Amino acid sequence: MLKNVPAMAFTGSELDRAAHLRRDEGWLARARAETHSRCVLLDDDKVHLSSERGLRFAHAISDDAIFLGLDDDGHAWFAAAATAADTMLDLRNLAASGSLPAPQLDLLAQARSLLHWHQRHGFCAHCGHATEMRDAGYRRVCPACKAEHFPRTDSVIIIAVKRNRHVLMGRQASWPPGMYSTLAGFMEPGETIEDAARREVKEESGIDVGAIEIVANQPWPFPSSLMIGMIGEALNEDIVIDTTEIEHARWFSHADIEAMKLGTHKDGLKIPPPLAIAHHLILGAFQSS
Amino acid sequence: MLKNVPAMAFTGSELDRAAHLRRDEGWLARARAETHSRCVLLDDDKVHLSSERGLRFAHAISDDAIFLGLDDDGHAWFAAAATAADTMLDLRNLAASGSLPAPQLDLLAQARSLLHWHQRHGFCAHCGHATEMRDAGYRRVCPACKAEHFPRTDSVIIIAVKRNRHVLMGRQASWPPGMYSTLAGFMEPGETIEDAARREVKEESGIDVGAIEIVANQPWPFPSSLMIGMIGEALNEDIVIDTTEIEHARWFSHADIEAMKLGTHKDGLKIPPPLAIAHHLILGAFQSS
Repeated sequence: MLKNVPAMAFTGSELDRAAHLRRDEGWLARARAETHSRCVLLDDDKVHLSSERGLRFAHAISDDAIFLGLDDDGHAWFAAAATAADTMLDLRNLAASGSLPAPQLDLLAQARSLLHWHQRHGFCAHCGHATEMRDAGYRRVCPACKAEHFPRTDSVIIIAVKRNRHVLMGRQASWPPGMYSTLAGFMEPGETIEDAARREVKEESGIDVGAIEIVANQPWPFPSSLMIGMIGEALNEDIVIDTTEIEHARWFSHADIEAMKLGTHKDGLKIPPPLAIAHHLILGAFQSS
Repeated sequence: MLKNVPAMAFTGSELDRAAHLRRDEGWLARARAETHSRCVLLDDDKVHLSSERGLRFAHAISDDAIFLGLDDDGHAWFAAAATAADTMLDLRNLAASGSLPAPQLDLLAQARSLLHWHQRHGFCAHCGHATEMRDAGYRRVCPACKAEHFPRTDSVIIIAVKRNRHVLMGRQASWPPGMYSTLAGFMEPGETIEDAARREVKEESGIDVGAIEIVANQPWPFPSSLMIGMIGEALNEDIVIDTTEIEHARWFSHADIEAMKLGTHKDGLKIPPPLAIAHHLILGAFQSS
């Protein structure tokens, strides 16, 4: 495991998801009408904030609001789609700013992933008929072919590959100038986590990876990924880049990484902020294991 | 990590998935026509076998066959849907029997998950229009709304919870009589792996879990799951069962487990076979950590 890692964004939810209440229509109706209940409002990645920059809540909680769970006081939290308004802030920026308490950020991640799934899954992938929401947002059913559909989470492998006190990082052409990060990619059916990491690193950089340790994980709600973080040992050094996936990759020394973290690298290079699991994997590659 | 664990089923693929060839229509056409290429045939969970009980391959490889990858000899392997025939064997039974070499079993897992995805995702979840296969089976596109769809893998948490040299196991009413196993469940959007495990164990058994270690993982192609295996420390002992999820749960001693493994338990109780990750998690709970 990584040592001395502060809580990453989206990893410290304090809501009790209370799954047994999702099919209790009577309880849900009472909770929607209860004045202590809260309903957060999102438009895609954008979160509706109040003028005081805290969360803005719906005045009335609609029947199609998604039930997120119960807080420590036993109050119900819901999520609903909002139309664009003046006081919207991007969820990534909100996470980076640290302006919201961590548990609120975590429930926004849950809300954003679920709302996005409903927006993109209104039809049955099996027969094409329009589907209907069930279980307060955790299931959709097809009235035509009776297929059930459940929210989707895509697992992403992300790995800091190390060798001789250096770490392998790459960059995509679309990223901010100077930004480098750990290699990453979606898992495919029938792979182990380690095989997926080895495949992705080999494809992108030509590097073979031997021993791998899973050291951290982070939900990433853009729209609905689970980042599975690893540190691995490279078996070779010569990088061969697949330019369809990344623009550049190279080995970085510990001194490089420390300067990139502090924003003092002589070439203006950077690593992702502490918000992202990549930041902690990169630093973790220099911890003694 | 678990110690002394033999390779679990579906975890040792030797195919190079060669993703860069998936969009190379010229190469794919040549590979489909090449006599050394192989195309396995499945009907849902059933695998088409030859009369010698080895894999049966298609005589001609169709344009809609899925490209699985290249073997060590550089030969291409494909997968296609078969109609039911005399010589079909269930993939679970095939795995349990040990009659096929492990690498062939692993590519069948990949084939089964991908074929199932296409069978169940012929329509666009976003707009309901019929979709078309692309990338030799690794993508579908909607000609109407242009949405892209990728194969889905569902992550499942599975955990051996231990306390005072006992391990917590439960059973579902639908299981064979006497079978007990580790608690497990699908991950939900916005959760960490550890939070998902704590939620599932709490829901099913009332037990709170403290420290958790991820120790193993296994693709499970029925139809397309990734089992993420953990060992965790219980914080309490009194079990409260959620009977909508499981029929019974209890604590088992090391002597219980050893007898269940050998089939000599005085009450006829059993644990899952070595094929399943659960088997190794259960035994792993008694290894010193």
